[in-house]
Amino acid sequence: MSAKVGVIMGSKSDWETMKLACDVLDELQIAYEKKVVSAHRTPDLMFEYAETAASRGLKVIIAGAGGAAHLPGMVAAKTILPVIGVPVKSSTLNGLDSLLSIVQMPGGIPVATVAIGNAGGTNAGLLAAQMIGAFEPEVQARVQARRDRVQREVMESSETL
Amino acid sequence: MSAKVGVIMGSKSDWETMKLACDVLDELQIAYEKKVVSAHRTPDLMFEYAETAASRGLKVIIAGAGGAAHLPGMVAAKTILPVIGVPVKSSTLNGLDSLLSIVQMPGGIPVATVAIGNAGGTNAGLLAAQMIGAFEPEVQARVQARRDRVQREVMESSETL
Amino acid sequence: MSAKVGVIMGSKSDWETMKLACDVLDELQIAYEKKVVSAHRTPDLMFEYAETAASRGLKVIIAGAGGAAHLPGMVAAKTILPVIGVPVKSSTLNGLDSLLSIVQMPGGIPVATVAIGNAGGTNAGLLAAQMIGAFEPEVQARVQARRDRVQREVMESSETL
Amino acid sequence: MSAKVGVIMGSKSDWETMKLACDVLDELQIAYEKKVVSAHRTPDLMFEYAETAASRGLKVIIAGAGGAAHLPGMVAAKTILPVIGVPVKSSTLNGLDSLLSIVQMPGGIPVATVAIGNAGGTNAGLLAAQMIGAFEPEVQARVQARRDRVQREVMESSETL
Amino acid sequence: MSAKVGVIMGSKSDWETMKLACDVLDELQIAYEKKVVSAHRTPDLMFEYAETAASRGLKVIIAGAGGAAHLPGMVAAKTILPVIGVPVKSSTLNGLDSLLSIVQMPGGIPVATVAIGNAGGTNAGLLAAQMIGAFEPEVQARVQARRDRVQREVMESSETL
Amino acid sequence: MSAKVGVIMGSKSDWETMKLACDVLDELQIAYEKKVVSAHRTPDLMFEYAETAASRGLKVIIAGAGGAAHLPGMVAAKTILPVIGVPVKSSTLNGLDSLLSIVQMPGGIPVATVAIGNAGGTNAGLLAAQMIGAFEPEVQARVQARRDRVQREVMESSETL
Amino acid sequence: MSAKVGVIMGSKSDWETMKLACDVLDELQIAYEKKVVSAHRTPDLMFEYAETAASRGLKVIIAGAGGAAHLPGMVAAKTILPVIGVPVKSSTLNGLDSLLSIVQMPGGIPVATVAIGNAGGTNAGLLAAQMIGAFEPEVQARVQARRDRVQREVMESSETL
Amino acid sequence: MSAKVGVIMGSKSDWETMKLACDVLDELQIAYEKKVVSAHRTPDLMFEYAETAASRGLKVIIAGAGGAAHLPGMVAAKTILPVIGVPVKSSTLNGLDSLLSIVQMPGGIPVATVAIGNAGGTNAGLLAAQMIGAFEPEVQARVQARRDRVQREVMESSETL
Repeated sequence: MSAKVGVIMGSKSDWETMKLACDVLDELQIAYEKKVVSAHRTPDLMFEYAETAASRGLKVIIAGAGGAAHLPGMVAAKTILPVIGVPVKSSTLNGLDSLLSIVQMPGGIPVATVAIGNAGGTNAGLLAAQMIGAFEPEVQARVQARRDRVQREVMESSETL
Repeated sequence: MSAKVGVIMGSKSDWETMKLACDVLDELQIAYEKKVVSAHRTPDLMFEYAETAASRGLKVIIAGAGGAAHLPGMVAAKTILPVIGVPVKSSTLNGLDSLLSIVQMPGGIPVATVAIGNAGGTNAGLLAAQMIGAFEPEVQARVQARRDRVQREVMESSETL
Repeated sequence: MSAKVGVIMGSKSDWETMKLACDVLDELQIAYEKKVVSAHRTPDLMFEYAETAASRGLKVIIAGAGGAAHLPGMVAAKTILPVIGVPVKSSTLNGLDSLLSIVQMPGGIPVATVAIGNAGGTNAGLLAAQMIGAFEPEVQARVQARRDRVQREVMESSETL
Repeated sequence: MSAKVGVIMGSKSDWETMKLACDVLDELQIAYEKKVVSAHRTPDLMFEYAETAASRGLKVIIAGAGGAAHLPGMVAAKTILPVIGVPVKSSTLNGLDSLLSIVQMPGGIPVATVAIGNAGGTNAGLLAAQMIGAFEPEVQARVQARRDRVQREVMESSETL
Repeated sequence: MSAKVGVIMGSKSDWETMKLACDVLDELQIAYEKKVVSAHRTPDLMFEYAETAASRGLKVIIAGAGGAAHLPGMVAAKTILPVIGVPVKSSTLNGLDSLLSIVQMPGGIPVATVAIGNAGGTNAGLLAAQMIGAFEPEVQARVQARRDRVQREVMESSETL
Repeated sequence: MSAKVGVIMGSKSDWETMKLACDVLDELQIAYEKKVVSAHRTPDLMFEYAETAASRGLKVIIAGAGGAAHLPGMVAAKTILPVIGVPVKSSTLNGLDSLLSIVQMPGGIPVATVAIGNAGGTNAGLLAAQMIGAFEPEVQARVQARRDRVQREVMESSETL
Repeated sequence: MSAKVGVIMGSKSDWETMKLACDVLDELQIAYEKKVVSAHRTPDLMFEYAETAASRGLKVIIAGAGGAAHLPGMVAAKTILPVIGVPVKSSTLNGLDSLLSIVQMPGGIPVATVAIGNAGGTNAGLLAAQMIGAFEPEVQARVQARRDRVQREVMESSETL
Repeated sequence: MSAKVGVIMGSKSDWETMKLACDVLDELQIAYEKKVVSAHRTPDLMFEYAETAASRGLKVIIAGAGGAAHLPGMVAAKTILPVIGVPVKSSTLNGLDSLLSIVQMPGGIPVATVAIGNAGGTNAGLLAAQMIGAFEPEVQARVQARRDRVQREVMESSETL
């Protein structure tokens, strides 16, 4: 099954957060590919990756980066696919720099930004699934099933307070 | 043609920003519906809107709100469709409160957040189009054409410095 | 004795902070109920909880949540009772996101916001007691007695510098 | 009818915001008193005001101040009544200083903080009404009626987009 | 020798920072007194302390507090002596709340604010000494000697890089 | 009468704020001198000014600057006199940069920082007067008289709400 | 004379700020070229510009952008020349987003960041001149002459307070 | 070989970060000198260092400091050489204070600011090398070789996800 989602990150140190996106995609049986692609250290690779993404069959790209996080926005500039940006928590400013660098895109090139850090990693996987699910009912059904399960878990957790 | 995108906002005062999303959808010939739906002042209407969105044929919802902006996240909690959140610029904290209220969603319920204010309004429309375009080639082609036009405009603007 | 205060939280992980509110209510002999109710993962349960709160005899609701903390504001939108919001300290932005998501409510639906984290947990219990105490003298007397005790403790602590 | 709510502010320049609290109390037919009481420039008056508030029949105090806003917290330290703090928008930091100075109270002395600026002014009046309404059904009914009216207005505003 | 400097703090937990001010005063042979005085938990004690400070012979007061730090500003409101405020590092917002609560005083009642945390503790002691030293040459000479010693230490530290 | 207070500022554009310090000194009959001294554009003049301040009879220096505001801290490094720093409101970050650049001095060299902008200008004058007043009773009496007058004005303003 | 400095900006709306850099270069007689090059809207042009900069004889590049400002960092990733980044003041967050997006570059690819807004525009021109001046004495002499003139202007401005 | 780069820092505790700049310079075979020079504790040494830097043959100065970080800006005020400022991570505000104190320089005296903390340390060394490399081809070649090596490392790291 060819990949529908591309998961990329600016550094291998982002993997802890980005793995959570992959975990969700695994759980929801959505094929994906993963790669370290640095906006600043491998710029040509980044452009090539973005330019060929749509023709390789990807439907959405998830890009995570921290600090002056340019990867999501630059990939978005080079592809017509929707790009989800994950602001990885940075060591100095707790990811506020990552967030603003990703979300404050100028009119013309959007990045679908999710929460800073691990919550964002998980949600990037879910958001990709929901985008695909809007057009593929079986994916949407799996997302719904996951939500139902989480809802039950929350309600049960109340009994252990 | 039935609406594929639902554009909602927490207050009529958000219209200045949200109109920009509608302008993009008009330009790209994507059918949409628009409505004032307040998380805090019309909560039942909000839930009803979100619950019925998928079955009414919507593929994505764009929700704009300011301050303690709960509309995008609450709509996301009640629909399986992808939800794009637009942080409207607030009068006291310049939209930083809107941004954090929308983007910092817990793992499980993502909101695709765009930039604060008018850039976010425009980009919400484009992001919705790109999500749809990943599955509908004619929409993708129109997004590409718009990008090509903007690119030419930028290059020409250089001559007037 | 039926509960006068409802203590809810968005996640079981908020319990460390919210337990402090319950400790104060225990100490001041105010009956309360406690429950995990997530705005995003159990939205219908949240609405039902809020809608029935007044008729079940509650006088005030304490709601704690972190990050894009929508629980206090959404409960406030669905009940006529006063709602106290506790911004739970978040892992990335130290609770600044929680605080702004709770306190910056639009005109029409207030949330009585207390401090971020554990000080807020304790103070939520005290604030609920003071609200009730304004109408029930024996509760007010117990709050006063607690204050007198704390005052003595502060003064004695000075001797051990 | 003796006042149930005391509305105080640190400076006459806070009146624009605090008047909105009074407007709500007028609309909901709740008797109140209003006064300029500065924590820093009239500290003794502040203490006297707070100390006598409960015995004069007040049920709740609304205190607005800007910058290093000490009025709400200091009044709370000197009364057993619930105190609502309104962070007035400041000229330099947009009220972020006011907000943090009011909301970050230490465990022991809570302040029920509302939004920065005019939304906070309106909501302070409503929150006071809701606190009283939890014990006085006719007040609660008027708050409910106001909410119903606002809900209708929001729904009608949608038609004029 | 009667105390010239009063060192007060809102909580015993502030002692770690405030002890550094006392250490400097010890080193510079300036008599001082120290006490826990809480603006919120012992307000009357605070007022009494401030009101009698000048007549007891104090020349300057050093007040440390964290969070919604009202102690320095309220003491300043009740004494004609200069008040130095030390923003103690808070557990949630790293002392930014403490800083803004102390420094943003309205026109009329100044607080001489120093750095957040331990640097502020040390500098509060030095600033008090410099204020006194402007009128008492032997104190000024000791401050100068301390500076000269520190300068030599910095220059020597360079050799160990 | 020789100057007891030196009022300096980094740029003539700071005069609007620093004039308020001078107004207070005029009102309290404290002799002062005023000068534009830029840390960055006239560094040698700054050092000379600071080095000779004590021997010229000054008792305290008031230094105002905006942005990366180095003037107060650098003057403090070159004089044994107490230095009051006024963070002038900056055009981009509203004076938050000015505040942090002035207040966050390392242990060893304190700056007595007051509020951002005009409140800080006025309070710098008052703080200088209070420092001098601790040793010169007639100055202290004038500060007290000013406070009494302001207190009356606040109390009278209440009647015009 | 072939250009030694390349001045680029993400949008024509950045010209107001970037013109100040050009004014300085004109004044110091340093040849430069100027161009609108958008990271997001003309990414290929940006890469081409950066890749050919060194071989075209440029010694330094000045790049200005606002919001999620990726231009300076991406150009830096594609050239071995030093890149000066100017954070243009943004409409919502006053340029704090621009600053963090530019300055927080990961280890490996530096951007020489200057102040937000117009001060940064002027200083970018001066910094470029100082870099060149370190190797070309006549340029350094002109920078020194400009400094001497500014110093005189500051000292004269003092007389008009 | 005489030093081309001067590496200075405000305190020995900054060495952990500043050592990274020296490591890069070692690696790229660029001669440098290193020294602790404190703006506040050794101001005269700082001025002397800056004044003689150009005549001693330095081409660029790297200055690191934390908190109210005045060293880079003050050195820049006293030399015509380009100055690179490294905002060292501070214990209370995570280096946001260091960053703003360094980057927000007024028009006239630029500081080339790099990222907060260790990334900034490394990048300061690289930026100095790039400035020199623009005029010395063998240095530029070594910078390019380092980049090529890092690029390969990033690409290889992808295989270990």
